[in-house]
Amino acid sequence: MPTIPNRPTAATLARNAASPDAGPVGEVYLVGAGPGDPELLTLRALRLIERADVVLYDNLVSAAVLDLIPPGTERVYVGKRRADHALRQEEINDLLVVHARAGRRVLRLKGGDPFMFGRGGEEIDSLSANGIPFEVVPGITAALGVAAFAGIPLTHRDHAQACLFVTGHLKDGSMDLDWTALARPRQTVVVYMGLLCLPILCAKLIEHGQSPDLPAAVIQHGTVPTQRVVTGTLATLPVLAERADLHGPTLIIIGDVVRLRDRLNWFNPDVAA
Amino acid sequence: MPTIPNRPTAATLARNAASPDAGPVGEVYLVGAGPGDPELLTLRALRLIERADVVLYDNLVSAAVLDLIPPGTERVYVGKRRADHALRQEEINDLLVVHARAGRRVLRLKGGDPFMFGRGGEEIDSLSANGIPFEVVPGITAALGVAAFAGIPLTHRDHAQACLFVTGHLKDGSMDLDWTALARPRQTVVVYMGLLCLPILCAKLIEHGQSPDLPAAVIQHGTVPTQRVVTGTLATLPVLAERADLHGPTLIIIGDVVRLRDRLNWFNPDVAA
Repeated sequence: MPTIPNRPTAATLARNAASPDAGPVGEVYLVGAGPGDPELLTLRALRLIERADVVLYDNLVSAAVLDLIPPGTERVYVGKRRADHALRQEEINDLLVVHARAGRRVLRLKGGDPFMFGRGGEEIDSLSANGIPFEVVPGITAALGVAAFAGIPLTHRDHAQACLFVTGHLKDGSMDLDWTALARPRQTVVVYMGLLCLPILCAKLIEHGQSPDLPAAVIQHGTVPTQRVVTGTLATLPVLAERADLHGPTLIIIGDVVRLRDRLNWFNPDVAA
Repeated sequence: MPTIPNRPTAATLARNAASPDAGPVGEVYLVGAGPGDPELLTLRALRLIERADVVLYDNLVSAAVLDLIPPGTERVYVGKRRADHALRQEEINDLLVVHARAGRRVLRLKGGDPFMFGRGGEEIDSLSANGIPFEVVPGITAALGVAAFAGIPLTHRDHAQACLFVTGHLKDGSMDLDWTALARPRQTVVVYMGLLCLPILCAKLIEHGQSPDLPAAVIQHGTVPTQRVVTGTLATLPVLAERADLHGPTLIIIGDVVRLRDRLNWFNPDVAA
């Protein structure tokens, strides 16, 4: 690996120098772990994993990425799976502060990218309020990882000039999404965590004017050997996905670009998952 | 660096075995180079850079990333800057085929992510049509890199539940964008390559119902030492940006999340750029 200059943590040095009586203050690195394949970590993320005193991670970080944490480094699992929130968000925020106040180098490792549906903003807001130095390292967000490995370009001159990212949380059996925005023409829509709501999602888009024949895909475990891709249309995908018995994490891609997968698919992991 | 299993190029082996009389066929890696900071390359990208026979790159790939190409590796600059298209897209497509047919390991290195406004889909479509094996490696797209380094979360529970990516090309003095989609509430809009059209962009959004007070930022050279961030509102940003005399590449972020930068800014490169 070539030598890459290490970015100095000047902020930390400056703040510690400014308040020498306050005791040691550590620092927090809010780092995106990417979509699953450990080779999709950034060089910076790997460097920080190797140097951390403690790693706080949640269940969207893949096992293969966790395997890169050195054996002697403390690991803290902080959730959060649906209905299995190991810790509430406020507790995670507080835990980061506590570890940093102990003078430690704290790595907060989040699946995908920390600023795309990761609530990373809330975590560093709490750090900022507590005077703790931090750095943010972007990661490959699931949409980009999954698109690359499924052979589905998110934008394409002939098909999509825009790309819209949303999350597909169900609340009391319905979805709080801006259907007018989702049903615009000539764009690709990516829905994070939308498997449970797929039938509602497709029905609502048709109700708001999209063609039932609009191509759509749902991808399980994008970028890793258990990746599976089910393609169909707004009319057919809910049934096809149910038959396929997919498991999370999944991602949904909606738009004409899905059709390109017929020619651009290159990643065919040899699994019977 | 820990040992990470190398993904076998099974597709290449299989295709070469299937047509032994066709002569050697190389392979093409369509790789995202990220937003500029070389530490934001993925591990996979670096590995492929070190092993390539030839690298085809364009002007959005940063000098610091190009410095990682081994001295003995052939480099081919293929454009494309505005009004300085070194090669037309079709010529780039053809060049990839020619190099691969010569049995070489071809790296197509693109700034950001190859599937987000990169025309990567067109390049591998041509490879697919010519029977040439390829792989796609996602990269940190500019929006995510810039957001992280500018302290602007793209999504936030209190401010934005969706994020829309578009490009800001000017054509005959006007912009062909879906203004209805761009002016929806509670979302963040990211405009790639939009510096020249910033005045039109802001005026059109106000015309379509957005508040003149909606926060907006333009970021020059995100993630590298010459990064500069100018923040304002739809009403004020065009003048502020002009006064700041920014240079490309730039990215525009529009939405309430821009306000969070006041508290979340952490990257302050020491430059007088």
